Amino acid sequence: MSAAPSFDEAFTAKLGELLAWRRDVRRFRTDTLPEALLEELLALMQLSPSVGHSQPWRWVRLRDLEQRAAVQASFAACNAAALADYEGEQARLYASLKLEGLREAPEQFAVFCDHGTGQGHGLGRRTMPEMLDYSVVAAITQFWLAARAHGVGVGWVSILDPDAMRRIVEAPPEWKLVGYLCVGFPVEEHDVPELVRAGWEKGRS
Amino acid sequence: MSAAPSFDEAFTAKLGELLAWRRDVRRFRTDTLPEALLEELLALMQLSPSVGHSQPWRWVRLRDLEQRAAVQASFAACNAAALADYEGEQARLYASLKLEGLREAPEQFAVFCDHGTGQGHGLGRRTMPEMLDYSVVAAITQFWLAARAHGVGVGWVSILDPDAMRRIVEAPPEWKLVGYLCVGFPVEEHDVPELVRAGWEKGRS
Repeated sequence: MSAAPSFDEAFTAKLGELLAWRRDVRRFRTDTLPEALLEELLALMQLSPSVGHSQPWRWVRLRDLEQRAAVQASFAACNAAALADYEGEQARLYASLKLEGLREAPEQFAVFCDHGTGQGHGLGRRTMPEMLDYSVVAAITQFWLAARAHGVGVGWVSILDPDAMRRIVEAPPEWKLVGYLCVGFPVEEHDVPELVRAGWEKGRS
Repeated sequence: MSAAPSFDEAFTAKLGELLAWRRDVRRFRTDTLPEALLEELLALMQLSPSVGHSQPWRWVRLRDLEQRAAVQASFAACNAAALADYEGEQARLYASLKLEGLREAPEQFAVFCDHGTGQGHGLGRRTMPEMLDYSVVAAITQFWLAARAHGVGVGWVSILDPDAMRRIVEAPPEWKLVGYLCVGFPVEEHDVPELVRAGWEKGRS
């Protein structure tokens, strides 16, 4: 163990800016990310908290164009079904929203929770088994913040069929999809969520 | 919108230290936290990502000693049941672990997900309804990081009965417990998880 760091006011002020400007990104530049940067972000993600130190996150990088096309097809089907749930003005607004950057984002990851892992020996998830999935969410959140600090945007896509996603990447049956991430340099940066700017939801902050 | 901030190498290096030294805290000093600091941390938590901008997190602050005693009783019962699942050396090791700071931590929060919220209009959670709970996990993760940057430790306790917790704080039936947090100044600081130091799980980092 090295000496515990201290964080001064300049850092905490900047951390506040990072949290405010993190935001979900759906508009990506298509230029590639440096490989070393991607490795650094994934290394920082590994520092995330996990129940019983189980580290159940499994990141699958999708580079194959056929796989990516299959993801886009899953999104299109799920999004059409979602649109059908809305009516009138709300349906028109929903149809106008840009909800993902699946075509543009240079890097994409399907992030799973490995329910078959023995790591952690079950500690901390007897009464709350969902803690295993939550550990993967924490890892995605940390990756997201680290990425934004390095100028990289992340968009979390959830309008997908989890079973289809597992088939597309040939994941084992005990892996549960937690998130699908689009990653790349953002076209524009905002401190107000896109859904608020688009008038979908005002929110409380 | 103000101008987008940029984050220099000094900040990203320090952010790496924050992620490494975040860690789950179970050993707290009993002195109180400044109220203004707690408010600042909760304001930063509000900036967390949420599906459809639903912001479904509901933070209940537990200050009542009877409530806290009931939480400790729930932990004791759940932990005894957990211990019974292990045998031999592993059981002895489990019994020696300090898994929570429920008696010492000056601030404690039960954090729920409000499944009854209309905010977000269901966007993004038709095929993955668990996204609502995941939004609360992201908020806890951001609170945790912001707290550590301000010298405050957080410990996430999951060895509890979620139904009992809801009864203890008289939460509505549509609120689901996501986490119970102990919050306070840490007795000691580490960059290696307590479970690794105690020999429970080596982990991969």
